[in-house]
Amino acid sequence: MARLVLMVSAFVLALASAPAFADGVPAALKQSGLNLMPWPAHVQLHDGRLALTGQFDIAVTGHPGQRVYDAAARLLQHLQQRSGIAFTQHEVATDSGNKQAQLVISVRRPGVLKLGEDESYRLRIDSRHVVLTAEDGLGALHGLQTLQQLLQSDSSGSWFPTVDISDKPRFRWRGLMIDVARHFEPVDVIERNIRGMAAVKLNVLHLHLSDNQGFRIESKVFPELTELGSGGQYYTQAQIRQIIQYADDRGIMVVPEFDLPAHAVGFLVSHPELASAPGPYHLYTRFGGKNPAFDPSNPETYRFLGRFFKEMAGLFPAPWIHIGGDENSGKQWDNNPVIQAYMQPSITSNEALQTQFIQKLAGMIKADGKQIIGWDEVLQPGLEKGAIVQSWRGKDSLYQAAREGHRTILSNGYYLDLLYPASDAYLNDPIPPGTHLKRSVRRNILGGEAEMWSELVRPGTIDSRIWPTAAAIAERLWSPQDLRDVAWMYKRLYVVNLDLEDLGLTQIRGQGVLLRQLAGQHEIQPLQILVDVISPVRGYQRMASGDYTTHSPLASITDAATANPWAAIRFNEWVSRFVKHPDAETEDKIRLQLEGWIANDPALEALIDRSPDLHSIKPLAQSLVTLSKIGLRALDCIDQEQAAPQAWARQTTTDFLQAREPAEATQLRMVDAVEQLVVMALKGDRFGGPEAARDGEKPSVGGRDK
Amino acid sequence: MARLVLMVSAFVLALASAPAFADGVPAALKQSGLNLMPWPAHVQLHDGRLALTGQFDIAVTGHPGQRVYDAAARLLQHLQQRSGIAFTQHEVATDSGNKQAQLVISVRRPGVLKLGEDESYRLRIDSRHVVLTAEDGLGALHGLQTLQQLLQSDSSGSWFPTVDISDKPRFRWRGLMIDVARHFEPVDVIERNIRGMAAVKLNVLHLHLSDNQGFRIESKVFPELTELGSGGQYYTQAQIRQIIQYADDRGIMVVPEFDLPAHAVGFLVSHPELASAPGPYHLYTRFGGKNPAFDPSNPETYRFLGRFFKEMAGLFPAPWIHIGGDENSGKQWDNNPVIQAYMQPSITSNEALQTQFIQKLAGMIKADGKQIIGWDEVLQPGLEKGAIVQSWRGKDSLYQAAREGHRTILSNGYYLDLLYPASDAYLNDPIPPGTHLKRSVRRNILGGEAEMWSELVRPGTIDSRIWPTAAAIAERLWSPQDLRDVAWMYKRLYVVNLDLEDLGLTQIRGQGVLLRQLAGQHEIQPLQILVDVISPVRGYQRMASGDYTTHSPLASITDAATANPWAAIRFNEWVSRFVKHPDAETEDKIRLQLEGWIANDPALEALIDRSPDLHSIKPLAQSLVTLSKIGLRALDCIDQEQAAPQAWARQTTTDFLQAREPAEATQLRMVDAVEQLVVMALKGDRFGGPEAARDGEKPSVGGRDK
Repeated sequence: MARLVLMVSAFVLALASAPAFADGVPAALKQSGLNLMPWPAHVQLHDGRLALTGQFDIAVTGHPGQRVYDAAARLLQHLQQRSGIAFTQHEVATDSGNKQAQLVISVRRPGVLKLGEDESYRLRIDSRHVVLTAEDGLGALHGLQTLQQLLQSDSSGSWFPTVDISDKPRFRWRGLMIDVARHFEPVDVIERNIRGMAAVKLNVLHLHLSDNQGFRIESKVFPELTELGSGGQYYTQAQIRQIIQYADDRGIMVVPEFDLPAHAVGFLVSHPELASAPGPYHLYTRFGGKNPAFDPSNPETYRFLGRFFKEMAGLFPAPWIHIGGDENSGKQWDNNPVIQAYMQPSITSNEALQTQFIQKLAGMIKADGKQIIGWDEVLQPGLEKGAIVQSWRGKDSLYQAAREGHRTILSNGYYLDLLYPASDAYLNDPIPPGTHLKRSVRRNILGGEAEMWSELVRPGTIDSRIWPTAAAIAERLWSPQDLRDVAWMYKRLYVVNLDLEDLGLTQIRGQGVLLRQLAGQHEIQPLQILVDVISPVRGYQRMASGDYTTHSPLASITDAATANPWAAIRFNEWVSRFVKHPDAETEDKIRLQLEGWIANDPALEALIDRSPDLHSIKPLAQSLVTLSKIGLRALDCIDQEQAAPQAWARQTTTDFLQAREPAEATQLRMVDAVEQLVVMALKGDRFGGPEAARDGEKPSVGGRDK
Repeated sequence: MARLVLMVSAFVLALASAPAFADGVPAALKQSGLNLMPWPAHVQLHDGRLALTGQFDIAVTGHPGQRVYDAAARLLQHLQQRSGIAFTQHEVATDSGNKQAQLVISVRRPGVLKLGEDESYRLRIDSRHVVLTAEDGLGALHGLQTLQQLLQSDSSGSWFPTVDISDKPRFRWRGLMIDVARHFEPVDVIERNIRGMAAVKLNVLHLHLSDNQGFRIESKVFPELTELGSGGQYYTQAQIRQIIQYADDRGIMVVPEFDLPAHAVGFLVSHPELASAPGPYHLYTRFGGKNPAFDPSNPETYRFLGRFFKEMAGLFPAPWIHIGGDENSGKQWDNNPVIQAYMQPSITSNEALQTQFIQKLAGMIKADGKQIIGWDEVLQPGLEKGAIVQSWRGKDSLYQAAREGHRTILSNGYYLDLLYPASDAYLNDPIPPGTHLKRSVRRNILGGEAEMWSELVRPGTIDSRIWPTAAAIAERLWSPQDLRDVAWMYKRLYVVNLDLEDLGLTQIRGQGVLLRQLAGQHEIQPLQILVDVISPVRGYQRMASGDYTTHSPLASITDAATANPWAAIRFNEWVSRFVKHPDAETEDKIRLQLEGWIANDPALEALIDRSPDLHSIKPLAQSLVTLSKIGLRALDCIDQEQAAPQAWARQTTTDFLQAREPAEATQLRMVDAVEQLVVMALKGDRFGGPEAARDGEKPSVGGRDK
């Protein structure tokens, strides 16, 4: 056991020695232990340190606004908590213009929560002082987060590296959407996610507040909306104000979405008279299915929505209201003669009717001093130029909207609920290297947004879907375009994930809770080892494979598994390095991991046998041990420079097929890597020894590896 | 590793075979897997099962009140979540008098939140139906909690055992006090603890709302109390109403405490004119020290307190206000000539002055329709008969107060902050077997209260101090007096602890969070193995050994360790059984555990070496491996029926001394057990083989074990 654990904890070290990348970041800097995420625009690391002591104090100068004072006070608290050092200073007073302080924060103006605010900062640390300068308070907030990420500790204590950082965001809109309609999320879930967003410099929280499964915000004008449409699960206006303030304190805007004209059951339960087909309507407990829509021919629809939006516009200070606009099938419209009559003669399609509807909404909302945001489908001829288009269908529509003069946000590729690994979202650039777009068109691409649709999450699991993947998306949207080194990203993400836990996010601890429930005991280590190499099936596979409702327990192994299983990520990285440069050190790591999985198997299978809720994952445990043995045999062949027998390799086909089968909507994520080892073993030799790996060059071996 | 983990998870099985106890509960029932806590007054277990299916439904008859409907709806949710079965029924309607339902809850009246309410229930489960009957809604709530604890699952699915339970509490007052003054606890911390209280049938939440470190509740009459006395950390009146309602929904009363006349800095910061010595006063950041008191000679004191208590009496529906009354040194009174003059001629001591003060308060509070509760010190001649005395100093004062006609509550022995193991509190009976007290005196002993003083806890660690020990106290206060089987209690406590986690309590998951922070990595298993055999130093040792303030981080290994380390509890139980009946099976378990600790050591020490925050606990790791080796050698001697060499045993003295040394305010908790093995080994033989153990009899071995 000792060996296994040692290896496991070598994670950071293991990934740190990944190959160099053409991203302008020197390898030495990548291996320096600076776990910054998002990585700043410019980083210069020096040799020294600034030791953290009880004398650490903070002074603020200029006109930073309350946000910066509060953030500085939080930093004090955090540094104490992490270092265990009690500071003399407990509060950052608003008149603390003490230029002698160890950290001086100098800010010209508070800044405004709006798109395109400066947000830049400069952070210089020498062996005696930290100087943080920023044009506005929002930039200062970002700088304080960077400083917090810079804290290190070793046997000499806690310290900051001496460093010179200047930084600013690449994109203006760095969002996270949380769908609180399909499954409601209480205020504390939202607040802890706001803390997570601030930590990785995301700046827009988009709340999807209504859908077919519920209406989630109190209206004082139309209290029936939540009385009938929420099942008691909604935010009061006091709570929404609290959320907005909490986000604002951390430099984050809150944008509300009310999905219209379809996805509207949450509205129509209490207002069936505004629907395009007769009611009554009941909240959906299932997902998908028919998608009732407002009646765009009914003047009452606009009277109602006008009053409703006026109320919401007064509640949310952000300059936009998201009106959805997606996935309206038009079927109710087709079958309603009054609507058909209304359309004649000039409205020739449902798309045109929807556009007219959206335009009317945009007009009302403009009168309330706001502009609209809508999903892809709102992009129709005649759409108001000020409207922002949020692209969920792909980059074609993103660029099309931008070319047509609309500001746009990329969501496609950032759907957290689909549970693709963080690397996929990380490499999904709104404007990838080599994209040819005019400067004016580029300028219209505001950024992107991570989307947390909530069919299959509840408060206890949602953090583990959002994080840490959203941190990788945050880096994509903040940091320079040429950063695409996945191994280095994962190395930092591993640490950021722990930092996020420290903020109260539950993506790690929640897994333990679920595993203990499933196992019925405190000790879950054998199960944990399995869960660290599996992840949920991706895309819509799980939805397709089960009959889920809003009442489904969501407490199976797939709810405990995550999109980024660290043991699999690490193992795959080792193998991918080993097949390129087969050195003895990496081989040892791979071998030790495979032996560890085999050693774990009896305890794992015994635990599974004792726990009825786990029986269905026994095939995964069995495949893990089978593949581990195959991997070891392949390594033996490679080691002995003997080609593996073709017959044996052919027999493994059944095992690989079996190992790729999902169980309980989860899958093993180290199968390809083991197969790579077998492929390598079939070649019967290794390309070189440790020397070859050390100088980073593949030795010439002629045609042998045909 | 496999062997180790297998053994670890055999926890429940291991303790289930503990020896019989004279508590009237048949051994078979103890081994039945009914993990009820508190154990009911009468339990009859039958052979059958009631299988849980999607058809499970609930009907309510009689006049149960809203509490029961809400609790039934929560039960539905819980059963779905735990079983993974989706029920057809989602809501328990208030007119659901369907007598055909699988669970019929029949209640005569809602019941009132007051001491001495009936609270009894009867629960009968046959293979087709569950019938829960109760006189009042509070009893029904308890019955639903018992039903929830009865849920079992195995390969055949989820089911209830067929059982006949009739149950009622032994004591009327089963409380938990949370000190929110020294460290503030946000609403969600209080709410999750209320859920935990309800799960184990505790019925009084006592909030210690003011002390020298803070004043924690909004007063609309005197808003300066929190403006100046809370550092922004307090409950608004809306929040307190929310807490009271949340508790009321679960059958729990909330009793507020305002500590007077001393412990009063929280008040005096904003009202220095009412103090017995001139101000100004500042909130304490340290604990202990001088204890300023109100001026009892100042008529303004009573005008202020009269108005204040009138406001609080309107806010809290419970019929009592706790006025503290403890630890007034009287020094400020001695040194204030005005107070000295006021005392002349009739008030001859500070005790008499305090009694007069308390009596005046009691009079005011009576005028507001409430009675007072006070700590021990309020028991003075002349104390109003209706006053309840809460005994923190011991049972002498408990019985004295009861004899003098006061109702009393035991707190002594239930101080959770002192971190004694659950077994200590469990065996601390307000009226132990054999106590001679008149019936009328017994009647005055209302029950007891677990006390969570908060010098050394914060929201992230408080649950791990309260739970699961408070569940053992709950059983002491609810269940029959003769239940004193500690091994069986621990067996059930282990499961209850998991159930409590399921309610959102953080005592298990919080430990992982802290260990990951300390280790700086996700993988903490080697450290976890150490933490499972250590616990914090007990009593006031930690306070004495450090310079703690309200700003101290409280994030060291001792904050992660708990009073009930399961691996040590299990190990100690094995050894204690083994030295009485040395059988091969128990020897194997002990041996395997010792080998496991040795095998873990290299990984543990490597992890400690990498983590500066952990360096100080290296001696514990070293002692664990040293003692494990000693234990194994002792076992070898016992196994070979060869007396261990005296010289060797003498040499171990240094090791035992070293192993008992605290490090980072934690101590190993398996040292005595290993020493017992050495003592046994010195005798050079075993008393008998597995046969001896099997028939539960110690064979006659003459004088050999002198």
